[in-house]
Amino acid sequence: MATTVETQERERVRALLGRVRSEGRAALTAPEGKIIADAYGITVPGEGLARDVDEAVALADRLGGSVVLKIVSPDILHKTDAGGVVVGVSGAQEVRAAFCSIVKNAKAYAPDARIEGVQVQQLVPPGTEVIVGAVTDPTFGKVVAFGLGGVLVEVLKDITFRLAPVTADEASSMLDSIGAAEILKGVRGAPAVDRWALAEQIRRVSDLVTDFPEIAEVDLNPVIASPDGAVAADIRILLSTEEVKPRRRYSREEILVSMRRLMEPRSVAVIGASNEQGKIGNSVMRNLIDGGFAGQIHPVNPRADDILGRKAYKSVTDVPGEVDVAVFAIPAKFVASALQEVGRKGIPNAVLIPSGFAETGEQALQDEIVAIGEQYGVRLLGPNIYGYYSTWQDLCATFCTPYDVKGPVALTSQSGGIGMAILGFARSTKTGVSAIVGLGNKSDIDEDDLLTWFGEDPHTECIAMHLEDLKDGRAFVEAARATVPRKPVVVLKAGRTSAGARAAGSHTGALAGDDAVYDDILRQAGVIRAPGLNDMLEYARALPVLPAPKGDNVVIITGAGGSGVLLSDAIVDNGLSLMEIPPDLDTAFKAFIPPFGAAGNPVDITGGEPPSTYEATIRLGMEDPRIHALVLGYWHTIVTPPMVFAELTARVVEEFRARGIEKPVVASLAGDTEVEEACAYLFERGVVAYPYTTERPVAVLGAKYRWARAAGLLGGGR
Amino acid sequence: MATTVETQERERVRALLGRVRSEGRAALTAPEGKIIADAYGITVPGEGLARDVDEAVALADRLGGSVVLKIVSPDILHKTDAGGVVVGVSGAQEVRAAFCSIVKNAKAYAPDARIEGVQVQQLVPPGTEVIVGAVTDPTFGKVVAFGLGGVLVEVLKDITFRLAPVTADEASSMLDSIGAAEILKGVRGAPAVDRWALAEQIRRVSDLVTDFPEIAEVDLNPVIASPDGAVAADIRILLSTEEVKPRRRYSREEILVSMRRLMEPRSVAVIGASNEQGKIGNSVMRNLIDGGFAGQIHPVNPRADDILGRKAYKSVTDVPGEVDVAVFAIPAKFVASALQEVGRKGIPNAVLIPSGFAETGEQALQDEIVAIGEQYGVRLLGPNIYGYYSTWQDLCATFCTPYDVKGPVALTSQSGGIGMAILGFARSTKTGVSAIVGLGNKSDIDEDDLLTWFGEDPHTECIAMHLEDLKDGRAFVEAARATVPRKPVVVLKAGRTSAGARAAGSHTGALAGDDAVYDDILRQAGVIRAPGLNDMLEYARALPVLPAPKGDNVVIITGAGGSGVLLSDAIVDNGLSLMEIPPDLDTAFKAFIPPFGAAGNPVDITGGEPPSTYEATIRLGMEDPRIHALVLGYWHTIVTPPMVFAELTARVVEEFRARGIEKPVVASLAGDTEVEEACAYLFERGVVAYPYTTERPVAVLGAKYRWARAAGLLGGGR
Repeated sequence: MATTVETQERERVRALLGRVRSEGRAALTAPEGKIIADAYGITVPGEGLARDVDEAVALADRLGGSVVLKIVSPDILHKTDAGGVVVGVSGAQEVRAAFCSIVKNAKAYAPDARIEGVQVQQLVPPGTEVIVGAVTDPTFGKVVAFGLGGVLVEVLKDITFRLAPVTADEASSMLDSIGAAEILKGVRGAPAVDRWALAEQIRRVSDLVTDFPEIAEVDLNPVIASPDGAVAADIRILLSTEEVKPRRRYSREEILVSMRRLMEPRSVAVIGASNEQGKIGNSVMRNLIDGGFAGQIHPVNPRADDILGRKAYKSVTDVPGEVDVAVFAIPAKFVASALQEVGRKGIPNAVLIPSGFAETGEQALQDEIVAIGEQYGVRLLGPNIYGYYSTWQDLCATFCTPYDVKGPVALTSQSGGIGMAILGFARSTKTGVSAIVGLGNKSDIDEDDLLTWFGEDPHTECIAMHLEDLKDGRAFVEAARATVPRKPVVVLKAGRTSAGARAAGSHTGALAGDDAVYDDILRQAGVIRAPGLNDMLEYARALPVLPAPKGDNVVIITGAGGSGVLLSDAIVDNGLSLMEIPPDLDTAFKAFIPPFGAAGNPVDITGGEPPSTYEATIRLGMEDPRIHALVLGYWHTIVTPPMVFAELTARVVEEFRARGIEKPVVASLAGDTEVEEACAYLFERGVVAYPYTTERPVAVLGAKYRWARAAGLLGGGR
Repeated sequence: MATTVETQERERVRALLGRVRSEGRAALTAPEGKIIADAYGITVPGEGLARDVDEAVALADRLGGSVVLKIVSPDILHKTDAGGVVVGVSGAQEVRAAFCSIVKNAKAYAPDARIEGVQVQQLVPPGTEVIVGAVTDPTFGKVVAFGLGGVLVEVLKDITFRLAPVTADEASSMLDSIGAAEILKGVRGAPAVDRWALAEQIRRVSDLVTDFPEIAEVDLNPVIASPDGAVAADIRILLSTEEVKPRRRYSREEILVSMRRLMEPRSVAVIGASNEQGKIGNSVMRNLIDGGFAGQIHPVNPRADDILGRKAYKSVTDVPGEVDVAVFAIPAKFVASALQEVGRKGIPNAVLIPSGFAETGEQALQDEIVAIGEQYGVRLLGPNIYGYYSTWQDLCATFCTPYDVKGPVALTSQSGGIGMAILGFARSTKTGVSAIVGLGNKSDIDEDDLLTWFGEDPHTECIAMHLEDLKDGRAFVEAARATVPRKPVVVLKAGRTSAGARAAGSHTGALAGDDAVYDDILRQAGVIRAPGLNDMLEYARALPVLPAPKGDNVVIITGAGGSGVLLSDAIVDNGLSLMEIPPDLDTAFKAFIPPFGAAGNPVDITGGEPPSTYEATIRLGMEDPRIHALVLGYWHTIVTPPMVFAELTARVVEEFRARGIEKPVVASLAGDTEVEEACAYLFERGVVAYPYTTERPVAVLGAKYRWARAAGLLGGGR
């Protein structure tokens, strides 16, 4: 993946890095950094190395104006801490004094340090201090960073990340992604910085680490951004000390072929099938049979002729005809030899329910089965999983209880416990499901394989994934980017806050906590990140119910003023836009509501109104093409009981749908317990409704909007 | 409330402010600001006013070193915008040039401005720029502010507020309450600022606005904080243009006397009682009777002799004996005259259900009834409310449905819709309630009256309030501070995000968005702020179930590793501390769990464990006195089904409770739908348990901890 940098320049850098490595160093000196900066067009101040005090004076004279003096030593990384920096020196006398004091301080700080001299550098004109950097993330590889400079970046951690390489547009978007973005645009009369120059610094750092994967970290810190440009006042480059092992990748076509046979099998073998109740091999057989799977089910058990009325085979190799999936229900120690047989039989998928592999410290056993899988081309799901459901195939290849509510949501979980929560929640809320898949140890098949499949699967309209890590962040981002334009992808990333400090030699490295990088990069991949388990489950349940919004204008129609205020809070919390109601529309709403009701937005129809007021205002909200989404606040009264509200709302929404007018409609129902039934009624009819909460319906609408934006449906792109 | 400032100094300021007002000015000039700063011991740089260029040169010479020149004009507030500031001038020539340029710029900027001269000021040594200020908040009155200085405070809004006057300790706590607090402590080798000097600047501003309520806003911006002190480089003072009308206040004793008769009445009159179904006066009568109220119920209706079998009176004045509460179920226009009669009868409480007052624009009608109430000493609840429930009295004085689950939670709502959501939620979750009270327009009785009562009410162990505004923020804070040490107060403040920009003449004013002030001051009052309606309801339901924690050490015990990770995330999100398990305790846990399970924290007992493993580890968690709270993660398996887990957990917790060992225990249950029944079972037995969520149990525990800290139970105070 070569960048646009001239071959000659690139080779100059290659030679330099070779020399540094041959000396056994990981950190480059400032003059070496300058050579690389020049090669990659990273703007730095004029400077030179002074080996003695006379050279320093001469250099300062040649550069002109004020200069900065900095110690140059391969053994001193934090120059300021060492008293090795003096800023704003001019004239021979001052340069002389500064040179001597720096060298003296450095020697006191690190008596054994090799001191190569003192760097004399043009003083950068005043401007906004920012940091531009790159790190090597264990999940995502090369990642560029941009943030506010100085001590503030460390304290406030106001920094943003992108996968390298970045385009000029992506680099530019980083300037808007920090909390203090406004500062770059100029605040209180200050001029805006040169955004193009700043973005260019990011892009060039990105090019550098893309061309040279051996560069582990880059820090331009600070970069002084001003209306006249962006100059990196200091550059620090660290080389990696370890080799990265490339991961085995399958092509999209290969993935789709094996995943189709996994998710739409015609023939399933159960290795370790059993007649004995309480055994996993018995539960799996029962679930396959009771679930109503229409394909062939072949029990494999060397000690039985017949299991649950089906002929049993001694070995999977004895099973007649093609088999698509082998479900393993045998102890870990027997898996490897059975997997050899699965490989020899040419079965493309092994579903490894047993635990006792990497998760219990048996990494060698897991490595062994992975090697067997790769040898025979068998894809492995698990080990250490509950199995999987493919609902539209009536396939329950799991030891849990069957699930049969067919629907549009595919759910996956890395953890078995979370898988059980998915099952219970789905059953309790009657969520229609296309698949539930356990990923467990992810020895082979992982989220990107599943995303690739569910992206194509016509039964699946929404994908929700619980994950604790990604084996290959880039493969996931690729799969997500291919899927998101067609269907929403919800991710619950667990372990958000465990990141902690990572040993790092650069500022950027210290700031690249796992979660900060995950958060930015998942967002760029267009994924909807759920803040918690229950949110993931509710998003999964609700997103497919709502049509995609066609614009940003959200209108609240409420019978309870109090709900209106809380719904408005939620609108802002979720990054949605309360529509500014144009005068003609305001007049139209006013015609339906009492004189003391408030038009505007929220449209407050007031509490004592009959069904007709709800209906007329909802109808207007659906009809007017300038309104793109409705948030309803219902207040339980005798005049308009819950089911009356539910029935009229569902009817109006359905009527408009029949006319081809679809808008997302969500509702918050405040009232006595009858509102629960009303919510269920509405949900089943395409209106996402919740009792006793103003937050949740708007959070779901917010998730739908985040997806619509990521999918490019609202303009403005990701 | 006079401060420690010398009388003489205070009088000097009084005289100065008098002069400014007599000139019809609201903004003080810089030299006037300097006089006030000197009187109140606010440290400012040496400076003087130069009326002409020669005076400027002489002044600069006398001050020595570099100086700053600033235009002085009563008509120019934003001096920088006017080109009226030059920094870092030294020597006669530079001073001369700067003086002329400033005056020229100012004349160009505002040709009609009266220019009094140029302020010549010592250049403040470098340091951290912060802002110290004070504003007059419409809800809370005088409030002091502290934040990061420069443009960052405007962009990042990193600022904190306290009620004035502040003590030295409170002022000092503000330094730790901003996001960038670390910067003041010195980052990367920078020295810490002089915290005492900085806190002293805050305290003195607080004294100033306390002594002079006519000062609307004060800005010390920037204050330069360094290891050697804190100097206000600029001071801006604005006077108020409006008089503040003092609010009628009742004493604590007065409040308790009337509230007791409201909440524990022996006799209730219903004005507008009716035999006609569908009428509010009929619903109220039915609910009073059906609710089982044991006191007297007197219907008042001039056109009936008998209502629902009770003798009806033409007027409330005809009712025999003392009456504690008059419930109004008549149209708004008849309220005033009926209230006169209530007053004449000496009834202390009027519950005003009718709408049609301020909320529909009828402010005059509302003012009229408030005046009548004050005249007769009748306290008014409402108008525009659903009424109220006092469950332990079997009192349902409302037109809604009765509610009879007696318990420890008092709930109030400003909005009727939210009141109905409270009712439905409580019924659906079987939440035990001591009272539900509608506040509506809050023409008289408001949150501080109710807090004062519920604080004393022995039936009430937790108070949850929905509010959109506070009539008197200081009275509320006072009541909250008196109540919180005894019982938790949960507040849902609606309208968080509607604050928007307030017209303000100072930086502090511009930053004091309603919600920022509410948030800081409610926290200082020890109130638990619920992020949303459903959170408020869940906190109200769950907080009384949990005992107070006695220390910070939280331990997670989980059967599902995946839940453990999510529960850990939630621990950090909620500001709780995962205990660092000491080696002996680690060994003790390890004895119970499989070798591949993880001790540490979370204690991961792994998925396939029998009930005995859950029981042994939970028992150890309860037993060890170093552990203060338990978070349980249950994973549904055949080996330990949901109800088995629920039974053993409830039994162990109960057993320790009987031994006098009480710790908060919360649980997240991941599993099929049977976990719902298990959660209900646990909840009823003192373990706060939820299905399909890892976030909620920890959020509740976090709320309990926030309260315990505010109540001083964990040391460290508020």
